[in-house]
Amino acid sequence: MKIAVDIFGGDHSPVETVKGAVLALGADKDLKLVLTGDKGVIESELKKYSYDAARVETVDAPEVISCDESPTSAIRVKKNSSLVVACELLKSRDDIDGMVSAGSTGAVLAGSIFKVGRLKGVQRPALAPVLPTLKGSDVCLVDCGANVDCKPEYLVQFALMGVSYMRAVYGIVNPRVALVSVGVEDEKGNELTKEAFARLKALDINFVGNMEARDALTGDYDVLVADGFVGNVLLKTAEGTAKMVMKLVKNAVMSSTLSKIGALFMKKSLRKVKDDMDYNKKGGAPLLGIDKVVVKAHGSSNAESFAVAIAQAAKMAEGGLTADIKNELAKVVASDNAQA
Amino acid sequence: MKIAVDIFGGDHSPVETVKGAVLALGADKDLKLVLTGDKGVIESELKKYSYDAARVETVDAPEVISCDESPTSAIRVKKNSSLVVACELLKSRDDIDGMVSAGSTGAVLAGSIFKVGRLKGVQRPALAPVLPTLKGSDVCLVDCGANVDCKPEYLVQFALMGVSYMRAVYGIVNPRVALVSVGVEDEKGNELTKEAFARLKALDINFVGNMEARDALTGDYDVLVADGFVGNVLLKTAEGTAKMVMKLVKNAVMSSTLSKIGALFMKKSLRKVKDDMDYNKKGGAPLLGIDKVVVKAHGSSNAESFAVAIAQAAKMAEGGLTADIKNELAKVVASDNAQA
Repeated sequence: MKIAVDIFGGDHSPVETVKGAVLALGADKDLKLVLTGDKGVIESELKKYSYDAARVETVDAPEVISCDESPTSAIRVKKNSSLVVACELLKSRDDIDGMVSAGSTGAVLAGSIFKVGRLKGVQRPALAPVLPTLKGSDVCLVDCGANVDCKPEYLVQFALMGVSYMRAVYGIVNPRVALVSVGVEDEKGNELTKEAFARLKALDINFVGNMEARDALTGDYDVLVADGFVGNVLLKTAEGTAKMVMKLVKNAVMSSTLSKIGALFMKKSLRKVKDDMDYNKKGGAPLLGIDKVVVKAHGSSNAESFAVAIAQAAKMAEGGLTADIKNELAKVVASDNAQA
Repeated sequence: MKIAVDIFGGDHSPVETVKGAVLALGADKDLKLVLTGDKGVIESELKKYSYDAARVETVDAPEVISCDESPTSAIRVKKNSSLVVACELLKSRDDIDGMVSAGSTGAVLAGSIFKVGRLKGVQRPALAPVLPTLKGSDVCLVDCGANVDCKPEYLVQFALMGVSYMRAVYGIVNPRVALVSVGVEDEKGNELTKEAFARLKALDINFVGNMEARDALTGDYDVLVADGFVGNVLLKTAEGTAKMVMKLVKNAVMSSTLSKIGALFMKKSLRKVKDDMDYNKKGGAPLLGIDKVVVKAHGSSNAESFAVAIAQAAKMAEGGLTADIKNELAKVVASDNAQA
């Protein structure tokens, strides 16, 4: 697999992104990378490490898109930015299978949609991060913010793309799909989800029905479907609440000498909980529905998580994700024909 | 204050609801209660306790609305149910200031709206539970499920009712209001919230702007505004995630002998965290925008939390909540006039 890597995106680029690329190369002997960004800077960063130079190509792209810029206009204007060049390489070169960027979500979305293009038949590409669950399994949430205003048919496509993703990358044969709603009963929901519910039920997928958000992380589901606004609220609430509870635990522990003594014995266990909850360690969020594999790494990625995101992109490409999404989307047409 | 209490709602009625009523009477010497439900059963439950009988009235209402029934038809058909009778007493008797029920949310909503009626000018009454925050303060979330499909003007009214509530019951002079969105920037949001944002900004309230859901429980806000679908997802995600993290902490602790020893020292501290996070202990969710005070107690209420819900209803009535909401709603008219 060959992956294009935007070296100048994210809070810790280029130091951590270059280091992450080197780590990814070390972890997978078949991986090849094309690094985009200021060639001089990339090469001087690369000099810090020993790595298999035969598997690394560098493409000069000295411009950088900042987080403050309007994503759509930045993509149009900064033709020599590390992100746009990575997108164009992905689009034009058959030997490149995927792309990773830790740039701003808006810019990665705009670059992927306008420069790489949507997969045929996809109405709206969607961000699908994978979250940790109580059972230790992973659950994919589509969409978590790419589309804040949705139609029912978008939600149907989100479900199908989520199914493909969990199959291609996690090897789950028949992923359990749930629709995020305000109750588990079939009739619960708003106008959007009620219509989506009826359509999802008609499809040949493992649709288990409506789910209450309190059960999102139980591990009983593999794919959670929501419009991007609701998905974003779910993702961010889970993140904020987990941090808050861990903080409260810490405060409670520090409030008494007895507890402090207890905490000395528990340090390792509590750190494990923090690690288990850290969805940043799960790599990035794939942008599903683009013509080739795209992974949006977290803006705060360090070298380790950036390497995970690169490995994830390679795995998505190896798993034949885009072809699988095409097959899944064909189910909607089949279902529509059956109903007609 | 005199509060009507639906004794036959909730999972633990009538035992815990009657006990809760007695606890509430004991805690507030000025409180009077009108208990509705099967008179014989209520009186035999009351016999278990010593209480000031002069402050308790019982009204016979032998029918019970179950959770499985369609709320709207149950309210229409079961005229002698404890809930409908409580609603009708609240509507018809000037000496009754509020009502508490632990019945199903749908039934309490339907009973309040159709039997008691909306406050003049209110388009959609809303459920507004109060949640714990990291700073120890409380934050009110309007709406958390009464209205799953909203127009921008509903969100504006939710904000104003939330402001009234936090002022009347929590004594916060100028509550900080935030709109739940997908980013903090002014332009972030979906069609609904963008329009609501513009309207909220034009009002004479302490509107601090958009908020990301990860900051919902930081304690930096007093009122969070969302449509009922999004509010419900936020509330349930926070609840589910808090439970999950506490469970992970417990699992981690039990996984090693060292940790178990540590936990013995920390038991009290960890229990405090669990208590701090338990929004059931905060009483019930007020239904804002009804012509008189209504509190929906949790279905799983025990005597203690049911007593808190009754005290909360009394406090809402004492604080002049309904009159204050009327004043707040007038601000919209004032703002519309100023813009015209």
